Amino acid sequence: MSREQARHRFEQLSQLAVYDVNRQEHLLTDLYQLTMMYGYFQSADADKRVVFDLFYRSNPCGNGFVIAAGLEQVVMHLRQLRFQAREIEYLETTGLFSRAFLDELANFRFSGDVFAVPEGTIVFPQEPILRLEGRILELQLVESALLCFINHQSLIATKACRIVQAAQSRGAQNPAVSEFGLRRAQNVDAALFGARAAYIGGCTSTSNVAAGFAFGIPVSGTQAHSWIQSFPDELSAFRAYADAYPDKCLLLVDTYDALRSGVPHAITVGKELRARGYDLQGIRIDSGDLAYLSKEARKRLDAAGFADTRIIVSDDLDEETIRDLLLQGAPIDGWGVGTALITSRDCPALGGVYKLAARWDGSVYEPLIKVSENPQKVTNPGKKRVWRLYVEGIASADLIALEDEPFPDGQPLALFDPVHTYKQKTVVGYEVRELLEPVILGGEVVAVLPSLEAIRERVQRELLTIAAETRRAKNPHVYHVDLSQTLWDLKQELVRQHRRQ
Amino acid sequence: MSREQARHRFEQLSQLAVYDVNRQEHLLTDLYQLTMMYGYFQSADADKRVVFDLFYRSNPCGNGFVIAAGLEQVVMHLRQLRFQAREIEYLETTGLFSRAFLDELANFRFSGDVFAVPEGTIVFPQEPILRLEGRILELQLVESALLCFINHQSLIATKACRIVQAAQSRGAQNPAVSEFGLRRAQNVDAALFGARAAYIGGCTSTSNVAAGFAFGIPVSGTQAHSWIQSFPDELSAFRAYADAYPDKCLLLVDTYDALRSGVPHAITVGKELRARGYDLQGIRIDSGDLAYLSKEARKRLDAAGFADTRIIVSDDLDEETIRDLLLQGAPIDGWGVGTALITSRDCPALGGVYKLAARWDGSVYEPLIKVSENPQKVTNPGKKRVWRLYVEGIASADLIALEDEPFPDGQPLALFDPVHTYKQKTVVGYEVRELLEPVILGGEVVAVLPSLEAIRERVQRELLTIAAETRRAKNPHVYHVDLSQTLWDLKQELVRQHRRQ
Repeated sequence: MSREQARHRFEQLSQLAVYDVNRQEHLLTDLYQLTMMYGYFQSADADKRVVFDLFYRSNPCGNGFVIAAGLEQVVMHLRQLRFQAREIEYLETTGLFSRAFLDELANFRFSGDVFAVPEGTIVFPQEPILRLEGRILELQLVESALLCFINHQSLIATKACRIVQAAQSRGAQNPAVSEFGLRRAQNVDAALFGARAAYIGGCTSTSNVAAGFAFGIPVSGTQAHSWIQSFPDELSAFRAYADAYPDKCLLLVDTYDALRSGVPHAITVGKELRARGYDLQGIRIDSGDLAYLSKEARKRLDAAGFADTRIIVSDDLDEETIRDLLLQGAPIDGWGVGTALITSRDCPALGGVYKLAARWDGSVYEPLIKVSENPQKVTNPGKKRVWRLYVEGIASADLIALEDEPFPDGQPLALFDPVHTYKQKTVVGYEVRELLEPVILGGEVVAVLPSLEAIRERVQRELLTIAAETRRAKNPHVYHVDLSQTLWDLKQELVRQHRRQ
Repeated sequence: MSREQARHRFEQLSQLAVYDVNRQEHLLTDLYQLTMMYGYFQSADADKRVVFDLFYRSNPCGNGFVIAAGLEQVVMHLRQLRFQAREIEYLETTGLFSRAFLDELANFRFSGDVFAVPEGTIVFPQEPILRLEGRILELQLVESALLCFINHQSLIATKACRIVQAAQSRGAQNPAVSEFGLRRAQNVDAALFGARAAYIGGCTSTSNVAAGFAFGIPVSGTQAHSWIQSFPDELSAFRAYADAYPDKCLLLVDTYDALRSGVPHAITVGKELRARGYDLQGIRIDSGDLAYLSKEARKRLDAAGFADTRIIVSDDLDEETIRDLLLQGAPIDGWGVGTALITSRDCPALGGVYKLAARWDGSVYEPLIKVSENPQKVTNPGKKRVWRLYVEGIASADLIALEDEPFPDGQPLALFDPVHTYKQKTVVGYEVRELLEPVILGGEVVAVLPSLEAIRERVQRELLTIAAETRRAKNPHVYHVDLSQTLWDLKQELVRQHRRQ
């Protein structure tokens, strides 16, 4: 029954323009994936079964966590991945591949397993957020696209969460944060999937109509300076807008002079609207000192009887500016955030990686390790699972263990930092949740992919389980992600074996 | 005849998967563009003719110029822009638009004029790189998408140029710079159009196979650490790769220990290849100190008789690291650059804007201005053209003039900084080129869109016309972009009028 629901939901998503099969780039991979695939094919190793982990090593933007996002795009890509004739022809022109290999590609279907944390889950460095198992030929191919999707959407969801949390500081009532970044986005998909991720992270709307169409995100927006300029004067421009949208009138007041011209004209139009039975919804300020202007505008609106008219601001905002404005008591009700959000300006890439963890030797999975001079970069070997331990509803630590280790039984659990092992703690009275869930098995979607609203709600639910110290925007507490004793011992043994060679 | 060629080339580009009409997001616009359009429609102003300029205000990454890119995407978007029934249905669900307006949208075709600098042109702050003229209804709609395309592609082309220039410093012979950023790109189009822009900016190849397929960019890549790890030992992994690609063998040497293991094994395989009549093409180093490792690897390769084997490096490179490595004498022949290039990490957005410059009053274009407290943000009014003055083949200054001003006649031309007017110079013995060229007239493509190779060559040709001082990576000379006396006078007059109100 659940498989039936999963298939139905997949079919539903396949109807979205954004996942249109014609939009999919089946060749969205790095050339070395294909040359390695060819190497495996030539050495008759293509069917070798392996396990890959997708994880990241450090949190972006100084945050204490990441919101995992992009899984829906991963599933749609894996399920729709089949090469078209003209793509095969193109590969032939490179001169790198034999006819037999190209024929293999022409019949390519993803037949592996994907375990993943659900979209909207809060995750931490080093822990697998996707675990793939299958033929090395297939798993190698999909690395680049999967990293691209997960890195991008997780990054923007996390950045949006930072910005929304800033807007909620100082007890701001129900602040509206709208994603305004289309014009500065790194092309179409960055704008579309960026708007999706921003909504997951807590934004309340987007200005991007295509994202509204594709994903059902609420859209918002009123008028630009060009509207005001294209009329002989500001008052005529305001009146024309109020005529078009008497019940949704929000006026941009800073084209000429916000306090001397824009706000008084907005009040004039507000009175005219009121005489017709409508309310002026708000004003927007897009330049100047937003603290000073919002305070003065609030005074004048209140004095004129427009206490319910909201003040919206925009102008190169980011989480720090928002927090500072609120700290200065700026009476701002809504925020439009562009460049800093849609590009994650101070950290425009999440450094997710995809590492080989195990190889089937005919009877068991042989654990594999990648050693590095940098201890943080030594990979965790083997086929693994991730447990989150909750104490009184708050996430206390995550534990990475091997697949066949027994589920923690509630007994006191001694944890230690995998690099600085003197850092130890014992967790008692905990509940356990397993983070990785089956999404695709043998190439078939087995999880019911949640709606965007459900993903967004999960983020809010999960935030309640994260300690305030870890949610702090600057220098947050480093959340514990530890290894089970068994996994830690295995890792040390593999490092030793490797050093001996 | 030229129109025929232009149409033919457009048809040719329409066949590219990347411009597939199903990929196009017709609703890729900010909601306020649609609400403004509705306002114009309601006030019977939809047909009002206007002029918009697209320009940017400051150079990214501390560079002295920008390489204009993205025009092809603009043209394909404008020509294919027509709303589908389900898009109109979606707009209806917002409750913001009347049936009559939606019917107007259903028949929407872009019928305006576009003048633009050819792709690959070097441009500077404040000067229009696109100038659009047409119905305000149409020009307002397309703002967001055009900014998105031009901002993104121009940014990445410029960043690529910086990186390639770094790799060419110290007289490096013909350095190969490959774009490796797919996994860190801000989703699919950022990777695809980013690879295109990187190639325009001077990169020699991309790892992104979809970009190779879409645009014909040369692709490059060999193997990852996972290839090495998936074999029992490094030597077997190298041999298997050499078997698959004896004539194109480039080996990744840093999986275990570059100097103690990787390079000696590469030399072993190089000798085996030589015995079979092949040459080892190169080695790649992806971690550790690239200066030390490349020098030591070079010594060992040379000593073993592999002086022609190239050394390629990667590992979070950017233009500063590349310049520093070359300054330290690192014998590096090729570079794979990922995150810093594909996201333009230190400056992930170009701040291009789209401003209303003139409005048809029935007999002439009335010039319009947007005033701001910041003098750099006061727009240049009127329908304008841009001239570039060359002295002895080197660009000496750009001059923004009004459309109807006479072409400079070769007489000495007094120029002055439009903000700091005491900064003056007189240009003599110059040649003039007009930068803005007609691309679309009355909705029809009239320019033959150049091939990607031609665009890339234009960049190299234009770089030769830019003074070394302006090409400097840090603190470059600020290139003169001045206003004609007539335009400057008009601007001052409009500012005065505005202040009087």
